[in-house]
Amino acid sequence: MSYRAPLQDIAFTLDHMVGARRLSGTALFAEATADLRKAILAGAARIAEEAFAPLNRSGDLERSELEDGAVRTPAGFRDALAAFASGGFIGMTARPEHGGLGLPLTFASPVNEMIASANLSLSLAPLLAQGQIEALEAFAPPRIKALYLPKLAAGEWLGTMNLTEPQAGTDLAAIATRAEPQSDGTFAITGQKIFITWGDHDLTENISHLVLARIPDGPEGVKGLSVFVVPKFLPDAHGAPGTANAITTVSLEHKLGLRASPTAVMAFQDAKGWLVGEAHGGIEVMFRMMNNARLGVGLEGVGAAERASQKALAYAIERKQGASPIADGTGAIVDHADVRRMLLTQRALTATARAICYDCAFSFDIARGAEGAESDAWAARGALLTPIAKAYGTDAGIAAADLGIQIHGGLGFIEETGAAQILRDVRVTSIYEGTNGIQAMDLVGRKMADGGTAARALLEEVAQTVRRANQSGHPQFANVLKTARDSVAGATEVLQNLPENDRFAGASHYLKAFALVLGGHYLLRAALADTAWTPLARFHLLRMAPQAITEAAAGVAGGHDLYAANADALGSR
Amino acid sequence: MSYRAPLQDIAFTLDHMVGARRLSGTALFAEATADLRKAILAGAARIAEEAFAPLNRSGDLERSELEDGAVRTPAGFRDALAAFASGGFIGMTARPEHGGLGLPLTFASPVNEMIASANLSLSLAPLLAQGQIEALEAFAPPRIKALYLPKLAAGEWLGTMNLTEPQAGTDLAAIATRAEPQSDGTFAITGQKIFITWGDHDLTENISHLVLARIPDGPEGVKGLSVFVVPKFLPDAHGAPGTANAITTVSLEHKLGLRASPTAVMAFQDAKGWLVGEAHGGIEVMFRMMNNARLGVGLEGVGAAERASQKALAYAIERKQGASPIADGTGAIVDHADVRRMLLTQRALTATARAICYDCAFSFDIARGAEGAESDAWAARGALLTPIAKAYGTDAGIAAADLGIQIHGGLGFIEETGAAQILRDVRVTSIYEGTNGIQAMDLVGRKMADGGTAARALLEEVAQTVRRANQSGHPQFANVLKTARDSVAGATEVLQNLPENDRFAGASHYLKAFALVLGGHYLLRAALADTAWTPLARFHLLRMAPQAITEAAAGVAGGHDLYAANADALGSR
Repeated sequence: MSYRAPLQDIAFTLDHMVGARRLSGTALFAEATADLRKAILAGAARIAEEAFAPLNRSGDLERSELEDGAVRTPAGFRDALAAFASGGFIGMTARPEHGGLGLPLTFASPVNEMIASANLSLSLAPLLAQGQIEALEAFAPPRIKALYLPKLAAGEWLGTMNLTEPQAGTDLAAIATRAEPQSDGTFAITGQKIFITWGDHDLTENISHLVLARIPDGPEGVKGLSVFVVPKFLPDAHGAPGTANAITTVSLEHKLGLRASPTAVMAFQDAKGWLVGEAHGGIEVMFRMMNNARLGVGLEGVGAAERASQKALAYAIERKQGASPIADGTGAIVDHADVRRMLLTQRALTATARAICYDCAFSFDIARGAEGAESDAWAARGALLTPIAKAYGTDAGIAAADLGIQIHGGLGFIEETGAAQILRDVRVTSIYEGTNGIQAMDLVGRKMADGGTAARALLEEVAQTVRRANQSGHPQFANVLKTARDSVAGATEVLQNLPENDRFAGASHYLKAFALVLGGHYLLRAALADTAWTPLARFHLLRMAPQAITEAAAGVAGGHDLYAANADALGSR
Repeated sequence: MSYRAPLQDIAFTLDHMVGARRLSGTALFAEATADLRKAILAGAARIAEEAFAPLNRSGDLERSELEDGAVRTPAGFRDALAAFASGGFIGMTARPEHGGLGLPLTFASPVNEMIASANLSLSLAPLLAQGQIEALEAFAPPRIKALYLPKLAAGEWLGTMNLTEPQAGTDLAAIATRAEPQSDGTFAITGQKIFITWGDHDLTENISHLVLARIPDGPEGVKGLSVFVVPKFLPDAHGAPGTANAITTVSLEHKLGLRASPTAVMAFQDAKGWLVGEAHGGIEVMFRMMNNARLGVGLEGVGAAERASQKALAYAIERKQGASPIADGTGAIVDHADVRRMLLTQRALTATARAICYDCAFSFDIARGAEGAESDAWAARGALLTPIAKAYGTDAGIAAADLGIQIHGGLGFIEETGAAQILRDVRVTSIYEGTNGIQAMDLVGRKMADGGTAARALLEEVAQTVRRANQSGHPQFANVLKTARDSVAGATEVLQNLPENDRFAGASHYLKAFALVLGGHYLLRAALADTAWTPLARFHLLRMAPQAITEAAAGVAGGHDLYAANADALGSR
């Protein structure tokens, strides 16, 4: 089956799990009404279903290939992207003065989820443009803004992020690409970058690369990094692409998945670039892009989880096999308890990861719409949710895709079925934009640098849900969620007093525990709003949320066990 | 890095976790001494390392292909198989009178694990021959035994299992392939089979297919199935391959992994076959093959887990990235707590799954060497361990391979690295030979038909380990294992009184809980025997074993939550 956008679930998640209607009460987003949202999401759904989804398998087979120094993309990709761009979706959160629609992230997030469901490879191209738009709006000098932003917002150009070098992955301090100041105020960029998503392609007339590089004689480490915008073709004053810049696409990677999305090794040889942000202020620019991108990657996971769930359920309803174990069964495998367990796990993963991601986007929007301490608190809430959205969203996508293979049985292993492609494609999302281990360290490190204030506030929201469930005649649900919540709340306090590396030792456990508690919270809110959600809430609280207790305990156990053996002794003999 | 056989770990697991030295105390295996075992395993290790492992990546790239009706296998496969065969390893458990070595399964299991680590695609070919040998030894008429067994044991022929048909996967009752009795006592087999592993190839001069088919006018359902041996070439009285039988290789599947292993659609059109076992007694023959094969598949998972662990640790020790978080660090990523968490998870999965599989093999050996009630008890122990070995072994393989990708970071997604291939290859093992859901249902169904006697006996062994740990000054370890064990013991009693489909509703949870408790038991035994194993035991008991508690609770929660929504309501809207 093909992809069908879950517009009702998306709306329900926004309205009843996240409470996003509050947005139109802010001055900034007063025009972001329920009607506008409905129209925007319906338009994006149509493009996802009709333009992106039909190219998912053909793109995987055809792949993007490097031919004579230029990347050729699969048939149909250019038109599909153009359809998305012409709907204004690439610039949907960009400011109107830059050619954008000025919509909240809360609207953009479901749009990005839907195109990720439909065609993850292609969806990365507009996502990177969105991240670049945000960085340029915040940091670029006026002339660059005027020249680049309308092109990016309209989808006439796309953008990339050039960070990684062979010796510098997670450790950006090791970046060696050089940016020599020129007499005309530009910089000559020289160096080699790897893992550059959509580094070259034939989808648009020009490509704007954001490149992390080092101006000579600056500080060492990350404090000496700067960001430059380096176009594939040097634009004239009106943005018409002119001379080719000194950028070479050296090679493309052969990857497990995302084969339609070219992942390039890029070489810059005295390429002309313009500074974005302060000299040596590159890390600030990069984190701005990254935070947006991390939420975006979490949504990629949600998209994959949704696609895998739809596909598996359709198969489970259709596939007849043996006698039914239930009285009113159809003889299809969906009648079987263990198949249902897998299907409901997929749905619970999808629904809870979606709510976490949307709530993260909502927090940033409200933070922008509010002021002072209120704004700061919402921004901190969004910042706390970001690593959870990224890590749990992508883990959910991977787990749901894996279950999708399992539900298909032997057919799941056959590429024509398409279940395996979902796993192959989504698998990298727990790695790029900061591995999920890095996300977990961010959660217990930087995001707890406030002494746990933001975490406590979010856990108090969960406690409110517990109280509401008790008042509404759901004491069993309330008890499960309370026990799980209290274990995470207790761990949050213990964490404050642990040395940093002991916090890191439990970080992945703690993040998972936190996500499971949030998942129970959102699904219980859903069930309280509409009993149609009660079965999924019951499933999660019975079979998934209780894992938070053991994960929270492991989260504060420290690192003694991890370092009890030296590195060599970790291996087999 | 390439594969290095973990001979010390294998020996330690057998001697101190499983207690396998007891084998040579039986009359049947009096000659299966420690010295012989060492020689056998060293010989197999050399072939795995030097003949199988170097062809793992090239085989994946080259693939087996159907060309002009015959399957061409990757370069080198024929010689590698011949090296394995010439060591006597294909027939290692076959009886000496059939050309075998008469070794215990306890010796064969590590051999099969090692070749699975080295080259999973190729390892399936001899594994299937071993399963066929066991079935023919037990059920074939004397003339078939005399003709086929020496050929199979010597590796001059290979064997296949032809069970699945498009409409008959898990549900064998739906099998439609027909076997018409002929006047010469043979049968004419007509039908189409799918997912036939190594269904055709050029590795050996002949292929012996075991085919599940239906003699006309027999009982309906599984009670009307019979097994036939159907050779690719009709052998003369001395076994020399003659006329081609009426068997066609219709097509090969395009698979996520195991691309060097041809998975065929096979068509039989009045192919000549000989009955194996009783007419309509096919299910008994098949279960004999299956039980052996299920343990073998569990070992495939162990092999993949070991390979993934080795590869990831080598990378983590070599890959420098940023400042070290520890005082005596090297600056490699192995210094980082979260990387260590992943590496130790891989090792714990590998070590515990290995012990479960070896103990399963050991149980069957002792059952053969003992008599009467003692033999029955050991056979029941092996039967109980079989679904756990299959399901937990393959889940461990998949999880460790997935972690291997994660530890490699961006490189994990690049096919040249080889980490992704391990996941692609092992992914099907949780599906074939009975999905892991079917294994779980077997555990709480057929394997509990004794009222829980075998499960209680095994859990009593765990209790003994708890007592020993308490006596040896490890009360914390003992307490963790006791709590986890007691939760599974409690669930075991509750299960007895649940309706069947409520047992099935928690079966996967219960199986996982049982495996986690067994894992803690084996690792605690290891730590009590040698303190070098203490860190891994501590890690498992701190971060993994406690999950048994929530899994055991979910295991007995029944199916109410699974059936609260009808099938359509399971989906997104």
